[in-house]
Amino acid sequence: MEKILLNEKILAKNDLIAEELRSFYKKNGIFVLNILSSPGSGKTTLLEKILPQMKEIYNILVLIGDLQTTNDAERVSKTGVKAVQINTGQACHLAAKNIYNILKDIGDSSKINLLIVENVGNLVCPASFDLGEDMKLLVISTPEGDDKPAKYPTAVDASDCLIINKVDLLPYVNFNVQNCINYAKGVNKNLTIFTTSCYTGEGLIDVIKFLKNNVDKKNHDNSGY
Amino acid sequence: MEKILLNEKILAKNDLIAEELRSFYKKNGIFVLNILSSPGSGKTTLLEKILPQMKEIYNILVLIGDLQTTNDAERVSKTGVKAVQINTGQACHLAAKNIYNILKDIGDSSKINLLIVENVGNLVCPASFDLGEDMKLLVISTPEGDDKPAKYPTAVDASDCLIINKVDLLPYVNFNVQNCINYAKGVNKNLTIFTTSCYTGEGLIDVIKFLKNNVDKKNHDNSGY
Repeated sequence: MEKILLNEKILAKNDLIAEELRSFYKKNGIFVLNILSSPGSGKTTLLEKILPQMKEIYNILVLIGDLQTTNDAERVSKTGVKAVQINTGQACHLAAKNIYNILKDIGDSSKINLLIVENVGNLVCPASFDLGEDMKLLVISTPEGDDKPAKYPTAVDASDCLIINKVDLLPYVNFNVQNCINYAKGVNKNLTIFTTSCYTGEGLIDVIKFLKNNVDKKNHDNSGY
Repeated sequence: MEKILLNEKILAKNDLIAEELRSFYKKNGIFVLNILSSPGSGKTTLLEKILPQMKEIYNILVLIGDLQTTNDAERVSKTGVKAVQINTGQACHLAAKNIYNILKDIGDSSKINLLIVENVGNLVCPASFDLGEDMKLLVISTPEGDDKPAKYPTAVDASDCLIINKVDLLPYVNFNVQNCINYAKGVNKNLTIFTTSCYTGEGLIDVIKFLKNNVDKKNHDNSGY
């Protein structure tokens, strides 16, 4: 079982850096959201739709992981929010050191109060790499099929919130929303679940409200009241 | 760069087992097809649709990788083709040893002449793990977006054939088939590309013909003619 031992070594090293990040976030009052999904589930479209409202309230930085291309950072930048692309080459996930290196380079990172990480599109590996985040948000889209939470339980178990996206495609795909919710709750009964269409905007007001509540709660807790 | 060194060690060990598998396949005249895609791109539906015709010609075994559940093996078994589920737990890909262990356990594996591996749904890691296969077939579905070949070039570069699936959803999603083809050919100009709807059956006759030509070519080459 050599492979598992090697992975444990990688994860232990990652956890150390994640702990450093967590201290930095706490000290500077930064809420960190880590967004996970398969490729093409709608992570970037979600950001394009919610950032215009959220940037009025928070000082936001978005970090985006992809093997190649800067497509997503370019799309997100158009909202007026600073977005930095991290190209991982062959790596299937963002690691804590990727985040650490960016924050080290950005001089004014302590002024941010909301850091959003759009992870590499992959329903498996990113769930195992702690980035020191406050919340993991998982996106599953309707064309992927309603059994995905059962087939990829690691990401569901690690997440605080699940967005079932692309509900505008429900008439054309074989997807039962209630089945998906049942599978997801079967893995993680504490999940907060939203159904959205990031294309039409359906359901996004509730997502923004939920995120705002969580960011403000952390700031309030940190302020000592 | 410890991580890359560790991964190289894992891959080198995998390559050794893959070489053993390749010898076994050659000796027994087995063509091996390794199918890769994101979660929910349509790998299992593709098999459900093409196996009823292909089982009339070949003695087929299907191995299916998923972290959890036996859903897909159950679906494929209904076609009358033997399907074995491999649950990888937390692992994001099938490794050569997974295939080796199954073939060792199945007494009559030498009677198979077509082994189809449906890999874990993941557009990154499975591309790096050699299973001794003759062909890698990559499935990308239209709801994922036409830029996926550019963002996930490793899988495109490693594959022999690309199926652009779910063309029945083209009226409802933001996907330009020609853009996707251009991105894919930009990474790997030797790719054979098909557009299909595994739901309606569109384009599948050409896929079956292509697979049959390749399987028969290997058998012919091996026969010494």
